[in-house]
Amino acid sequence: MAYMGSPIIIDKLLYQPKNSLINQSINAKELEEPLNGDGFGIGWYVPDVNYEPVTFVSINPAWSNRNLRNLAPKIRTECFIAHVRAASVGEVSESNCHPFQYGNLLMMHNGGVENFAAIKRQIREPLSNEFYNWIKGQTDSEHLFALMLHFLFEEGLSVNPESVIQAFERMFDHLHTLMWRGGITEPAYLNMVVTNGLFVVGTRFITDNKETPLTLYHSKAAHYAVENGIGQMRPAETGDRSILVVSEKLSDEKDWTMVPPNHFVVVDSELTVTTRPIKACA
Amino acid sequence: MAYMGSPIIIDKLLYQPKNSLINQSINAKELEEPLNGDGFGIGWYVPDVNYEPVTFVSINPAWSNRNLRNLAPKIRTECFIAHVRAASVGEVSESNCHPFQYGNLLMMHNGGVENFAAIKRQIREPLSNEFYNWIKGQTDSEHLFALMLHFLFEEGLSVNPESVIQAFERMFDHLHTLMWRGGITEPAYLNMVVTNGLFVVGTRFITDNKETPLTLYHSKAAHYAVENGIGQMRPAETGDRSILVVSEKLSDEKDWTMVPPNHFVVVDSELTVTTRPIKACA
Amino acid sequence: MAYMGSPIIIDKLLYQPKNSLINQSINAKELEEPLNGDGFGIGWYVPDVNYEPVTFVSINPAWSNRNLRNLAPKIRTECFIAHVRAASVGEVSESNCHPFQYGNLLMMHNGGVENFAAIKRQIREPLSNEFYNWIKGQTDSEHLFALMLHFLFEEGLSVNPESVIQAFERMFDHLHTLMWRGGITEPAYLNMVVTNGLFVVGTRFITDNKETPLTLYHSKAAHYAVENGIGQMRPAETGDRSILVVSEKLSDEKDWTMVPPNHFVVVDSELTVTTRPIKACA
Amino acid sequence: MAYMGSPIIIDKLLYQPKNSLINQSINAKELEEPLNGDGFGIGWYVPDVNYEPVTFVSINPAWSNRNLRNLAPKIRTECFIAHVRAASVGEVSESNCHPFQYGNLLMMHNGGVENFAAIKRQIREPLSNEFYNWIKGQTDSEHLFALMLHFLFEEGLSVNPESVIQAFERMFDHLHTLMWRGGITEPAYLNMVVTNGLFVVGTRFITDNKETPLTLYHSKAAHYAVENGIGQMRPAETGDRSILVVSEKLSDEKDWTMVPPNHFVVVDSELTVTTRPIKACA
Repeated sequence: MAYMGSPIIIDKLLYQPKNSLINQSINAKELEEPLNGDGFGIGWYVPDVNYEPVTFVSINPAWSNRNLRNLAPKIRTECFIAHVRAASVGEVSESNCHPFQYGNLLMMHNGGVENFAAIKRQIREPLSNEFYNWIKGQTDSEHLFALMLHFLFEEGLSVNPESVIQAFERMFDHLHTLMWRGGITEPAYLNMVVTNGLFVVGTRFITDNKETPLTLYHSKAAHYAVENGIGQMRPAETGDRSILVVSEKLSDEKDWTMVPPNHFVVVDSELTVTTRPIKACA
Repeated sequence: MAYMGSPIIIDKLLYQPKNSLINQSINAKELEEPLNGDGFGIGWYVPDVNYEPVTFVSINPAWSNRNLRNLAPKIRTECFIAHVRAASVGEVSESNCHPFQYGNLLMMHNGGVENFAAIKRQIREPLSNEFYNWIKGQTDSEHLFALMLHFLFEEGLSVNPESVIQAFERMFDHLHTLMWRGGITEPAYLNMVVTNGLFVVGTRFITDNKETPLTLYHSKAAHYAVENGIGQMRPAETGDRSILVVSEKLSDEKDWTMVPPNHFVVVDSELTVTTRPIKACA
Repeated sequence: MAYMGSPIIIDKLLYQPKNSLINQSINAKELEEPLNGDGFGIGWYVPDVNYEPVTFVSINPAWSNRNLRNLAPKIRTECFIAHVRAASVGEVSESNCHPFQYGNLLMMHNGGVENFAAIKRQIREPLSNEFYNWIKGQTDSEHLFALMLHFLFEEGLSVNPESVIQAFERMFDHLHTLMWRGGITEPAYLNMVVTNGLFVVGTRFITDNKETPLTLYHSKAAHYAVENGIGQMRPAETGDRSILVVSEKLSDEKDWTMVPPNHFVVVDSELTVTTRPIKACA
Repeated sequence: MAYMGSPIIIDKLLYQPKNSLINQSINAKELEEPLNGDGFGIGWYVPDVNYEPVTFVSINPAWSNRNLRNLAPKIRTECFIAHVRAASVGEVSESNCHPFQYGNLLMMHNGGVENFAAIKRQIREPLSNEFYNWIKGQTDSEHLFALMLHFLFEEGLSVNPESVIQAFERMFDHLHTLMWRGGITEPAYLNMVVTNGLFVVGTRFITDNKETPLTLYHSKAAHYAVENGIGQMRPAETGDRSILVVSEKLSDEKDWTMVPPNHFVVVDSELTVTTRPIKACA
């Protein structure tokens, strides 16, 4: 889940709604099996202190995390992301929790690369030392973000939605080539989110365009509120608007728009939402 | 789950079967919602060292517990119990994990007492100092076991299935009275297991006999094996027999016998299984 | 350590100074043995959200706590307390970490009651249900705070330094009586701190006034800064002042005043510091 | 600490002695500062189950680890190693705890490589996929063991003290070359232990032979017992003998022999102890 917009107490996104990510992880409706909570992580921005985000991760389930329950009602932010991990590659540890952080960027991934071990070495090989040493864990996610960051910063250009989009496209193509060479036939599921606190770029992607990627939705710019224990988007009052980008709809409301398959979704600092095709893995 | 009989590597009970307690906790068929894994605990006996059991507990889910995964294939025992906690009363912490241990006894509980806080003080009040100070956590389970132990050891008699049965009946009656005085109208679910490594006493009990207690089954004395990833009971070869007492049947096999409602189930050291009515809360 | 005054990023109190509580816990100069880090806890106030404090505790050492290291540079507060636990009574668990919280109050304790088990029951006995059920763990500290809170709220008066002082004096006297009845001859070490975010009351107390209580210091109202990796108090610029109350002096500077033995130290919202004798256990 | 010989209950090595590794970690006499307990790990062998060892690790201090305290009095083994980590490279996590395990081998390291990040990539580069993917964490230790294992298994010869010695010498030389190329001038401290349950090979090594390596001692083959809370070696009764190889002497007894600087110490299955010079980094 990614939230951007009007300042919000993060408890309203995490614990208050019955349909929050935490409670979804017990019984996710659109997945085959419930998520098992192999780790939980959140990240948020406090620009009145500085521009780097804060992360808080745990290998213990969020619902029983005393510190997080105490913190959540006390943190107010304009940009917040949250992730529940269902471990595919990599043991359950804090290093393997999302979101990953580099400078001002926060990144999280929903999905996985089948038989990642076959290409782990090759993924690492082109990385500059900066990103080679940045990797702390064993997840496919972290390795792919290292590669995306390598491309993003390679040319010294500024970080904005355009450059992030291009870095993703290069990374997806490079991954696709490595998968082919490594004999990985299963498509990779690559729903990813990157934010710097001012914009959000999400991907809804699968490396084989004949298959269906994991779900990804965005809301309109509206007012998020918790009513009757349900978090939902309501018509926005002036100035009090936000956008949510989520793996699963918070409610059955018609206010959730599915991101088209193999498309980017971009939320800019004006809360304008656009989508465009991902040009990779043709 | 309680196992008694032929020496077994505990991995065969914990991780190898797809239908083990660990995997059940993701998707328990006979419960309304999946268990959430608010703690996991096992206990077993190594009589060649001494008669006190060992316990191993964790607030992290069992499937991601590295130490337990490493230990399970290396521990062989004739008496083993395991418990997954779905927290009702008491925070998620090691103190609140089952099984509880006193001397040679291991105890675990499936169920709960509604609004336990209304009678917590009264439960503690009659306890001798020994059991008053034995309580480490805040669960209804641990408090009820303290009371049962208080009755069990009060008269200085030896510990055997008969004295354990009487201690349970006294505790259930006492609890029932306290619930009535404390204005607790919801029935208490009290499936409990006590073992000393040589016998097992289980209860399938609810304080209101017009309601249905939680499920409890026992197997015949048979040979436990893991076949095709499923743990099951097979006809016993001579000397290689064991009994399982479980909350949920391991398989749909007809070899599982439901313990009648509000009955004890007793497994003695010969692996003879008997059931008898619980004379309490009339 | 208790801090009150000018808004501060808590990292400046926790991780930046070589002489911080975290680093002291490795090699506390004024104690006989280094603190072992059986738990770490902090609490702080964010009055722009609400008046209840936040706590963050851990049974893992603070220096290796990833979440705390990430949070500390991002939290700004005017009132902050921190505690390292050297376990005397009660296992190492989150419930047994300080600070303890009740409503707007945070409490922490340095010291212990020898053979506390002999009077645990008696300590609990007079507590109203509110505070009886408030106790989560097994520490002497939490039980004594429950008793102090019971006295504090018994008469329905408002919470201020005067009423807190009286509650402490009643609690110390009551404890002293119970210790005498329970045959506890060793004096109890009772350095305690209570705050509501607007005032701080500290005690430097031992139940036998022929013995020396644990150390407790306070600073003048001055400007706290980290210079050359050392946290210290510098002459205050207008409006940028704070007070520190600490177990151990942060530095060998002459700006630390020892609280006299068996005295209260009170810091009010104007940062005025007063001390007065504790009238208890005569 | 490495123990080999007569079957022993590991509690006698871990918790019973005041001078055990656990208590040493509070106040290690021969080190500059006390060890901080950034992780603790043990490994042992149960050949009556199979030949692979078991490991148990924790990022929580050993003295407060409930499961380990419960297990230790119940585990009997003929080969046992234990390690307390003072983190140099790599975060505090279970992946970064020693001992490391590969097949039947257990490995642990006392020391570190300064500025390891400068050569991490180069250390990994020659590894076969087997050992490249075996690495889970970020420690210099694990990477060096990966390299040593790569050399050990490269030629398909059997694993015995001779082949382990040669693998170490190759690894030390290779490391030395990489350090020179990577501009690392500080010597690397490389006290390492490898065992397969039947023999132990230890190294007392520093890459610059003008400097002094960390301490390493071995005992004679004698009877280990805990007397007056002190673990010590006593003259051996027939058949009841064992060897200890330790970083720090357990006692001031004259029964501890310092392993000469830059020497191997080898304990074979007959408990014969030999030392020989390490031929590397000339």
